[in-house]
Amino acid sequence: MTEEKTIEWLKEGEFGVSLMVDQTLIPYEYKKIKIKTVDEIFNAIKTMIVRGAPAIGIAGAHGAALAAIELINEDDFINKLYEKMDYINSSRPTAVNLSWAIKEQKEIVEKNKEKTKKEVIEALIQNAIKLENEDIEINKKIGDFGAELVPKGAGILTHCNAGALATVGYGTALGVIRSAFKKDKNIMVYADETRPRQQGARITTYELIRDGIPTTLITDGMCSYFMKKGMINFVVTGADRIAANGDTANKIGTSTIAIAAKYYGIPFYIAAPKSTIDMSIKTGDDIVIELRDEDEVKIINGKPICADGVKVINPSFDVTDHSLIKGIITEYGVFKPEELKENFS
Amino acid sequence: MTEEKTIEWLKEGEFGVSLMVDQTLIPYEYKKIKIKTVDEIFNAIKTMIVRGAPAIGIAGAHGAALAAIELINEDDFINKLYEKMDYINSSRPTAVNLSWAIKEQKEIVEKNKEKTKKEVIEALIQNAIKLENEDIEINKKIGDFGAELVPKGAGILTHCNAGALATVGYGTALGVIRSAFKKDKNIMVYADETRPRQQGARITTYELIRDGIPTTLITDGMCSYFMKKGMINFVVTGADRIAANGDTANKIGTSTIAIAAKYYGIPFYIAAPKSTIDMSIKTGDDIVIELRDEDEVKIINGKPICADGVKVINPSFDVTDHSLIKGIITEYGVFKPEELKENFS
Repeated sequence: MTEEKTIEWLKEGEFGVSLMVDQTLIPYEYKKIKIKTVDEIFNAIKTMIVRGAPAIGIAGAHGAALAAIELINEDDFINKLYEKMDYINSSRPTAVNLSWAIKEQKEIVEKNKEKTKKEVIEALIQNAIKLENEDIEINKKIGDFGAELVPKGAGILTHCNAGALATVGYGTALGVIRSAFKKDKNIMVYADETRPRQQGARITTYELIRDGIPTTLITDGMCSYFMKKGMINFVVTGADRIAANGDTANKIGTSTIAIAAKYYGIPFYIAAPKSTIDMSIKTGDDIVIELRDEDEVKIINGKPICADGVKVINPSFDVTDHSLIKGIITEYGVFKPEELKENFS
Repeated sequence: MTEEKTIEWLKEGEFGVSLMVDQTLIPYEYKKIKIKTVDEIFNAIKTMIVRGAPAIGIAGAHGAALAAIELINEDDFINKLYEKMDYINSSRPTAVNLSWAIKEQKEIVEKNKEKTKKEVIEALIQNAIKLENEDIEINKKIGDFGAELVPKGAGILTHCNAGALATVGYGTALGVIRSAFKKDKNIMVYADETRPRQQGARITTYELIRDGIPTTLITDGMCSYFMKKGMINFVVTGADRIAANGDTANKIGTSTIAIAAKYYGIPFYIAAPKSTIDMSIKTGDDIVIELRDEDEVKIINGKPICADGVKVINPSFDVTDHSLIKGIITEYGVFKPEELKENFS
């Protein structure tokens, strides 16, 4: 699973399509689907067929190529292409990797706009493939830097899924875990269920069990119990957007865990590529938090779990204050929140 | 719902039966079932047909009466009765109310052991009914003491279900909420889902919506998000066992919330009757935490939510350190953890 791309550009026909694992089917089925249009890529991001900040970024890069392919016979090609790229960018607001990838692709368009439409399309495809390959390389570096921090025999808590399925391969937080496992650190991973959408239960346990990494599934409220017992002594999660001061948006529930880790004196790390750091945002207060459908909370496996008529608020992310974060593990090394400015500005 | 007993002794036939709401059917169906034997009461407690520390206590008191009825034609009646009472007491370890009720019933047996078997049975039934009635009175007192602490316009977080269904009626933590609602405090209740068994989603939302109390369902990891926003500014939960120093065992996830509340400077209260305070236990370290079946975590609405072969540890309770608790709301008033010793020894 670590050597295979979970999202990639597939050459077929004249240009190709986006090929991605349908993550909504995990853990029941591991199936790849072909995404051929802008509407399909928008829908795949929105409905979380593809999820995980870095994977969403690649989906956005693919979407830019699909947009150009759709527009090949249109006049006013460049302007219409930008419009479609902005549309793709509006599918989900919190993860910065999507807007980062769209921005990267816009630069490609800008550089090639005097060339033929076909050449623009090819340039967008080549750049998307380059971003795919870089993503895996970056994650392996993150993994290796992070593994240095993991004590022998660690009980590692992770939240949501920042794994091979959230990226092109290897993963960020799960990259750290994979590298620590390879170094025979004798770890036990505690995978948080991660309600409402249960990416920890559904995707992280699937990924780790498949790789033979010892994993215990726990519910989101249990972290204090295992931290107090000393069974969890290290925490690492991914990130969807990191502000200049180190405040970090990640899957809802992350900040609750970070507070518990602080209380018990347990190190809490974020693992994320440079592309997740958004130096244009000063603090977490300015990060837009996506509110998702009530039914994600109310219905599990097709059946309601609550009384009719109850109100639900379903924020998909929360912001972990920089003061709770021991370090941010990137492909350039591990930085304290206050070190981001000098290193990534 | 507040005026009706959710568990009560029902006179029928020569002596009667235990009549209780089957809580495993909530929120889909509100149905009472008759429990007629010791094995049935043991099973009802074990499988959580009846749950909630005070309600389990009453079930134990009923069980003592059912045991005596079963033994009416046996020799060595008293010793066999004690054995059956001890068996009922072994159904769940953490909530002290069960062993408290069994102890109360043993005192009744002791007082009446020279009388006829029939008289012993009648005495056990009368005492069970007395405990039922006292439970509701106690909860109303807890509610009224607690309501004094609730600010106008409060956003109140509660975890699990410490309501009418967890008691004979009115509830402890939900008693505080009911009393605050009656006093027009203009509250919004945030009900934690409470994985794994979702008593917050399934039972608390059902109880509160039925009583017209504004309620928002959230997942267990969300508390930090709503506390940071100032939408939650008061926390109250029930308890399963309170040690002499104020350390409190309650549903798994409670201590995580208490840590978050402390971090944000939000008052965290426990609402529980005197019978939940166990002065024989010095600190929370000595409270036995029940570990329950893996499937409670792995399967929801009949379908697995995780990969095959993943390990699960499922502690049903955690212990909230006394330093995180602002006050314990009892029928005798509100006490700081360090005030328990002088008031309840």
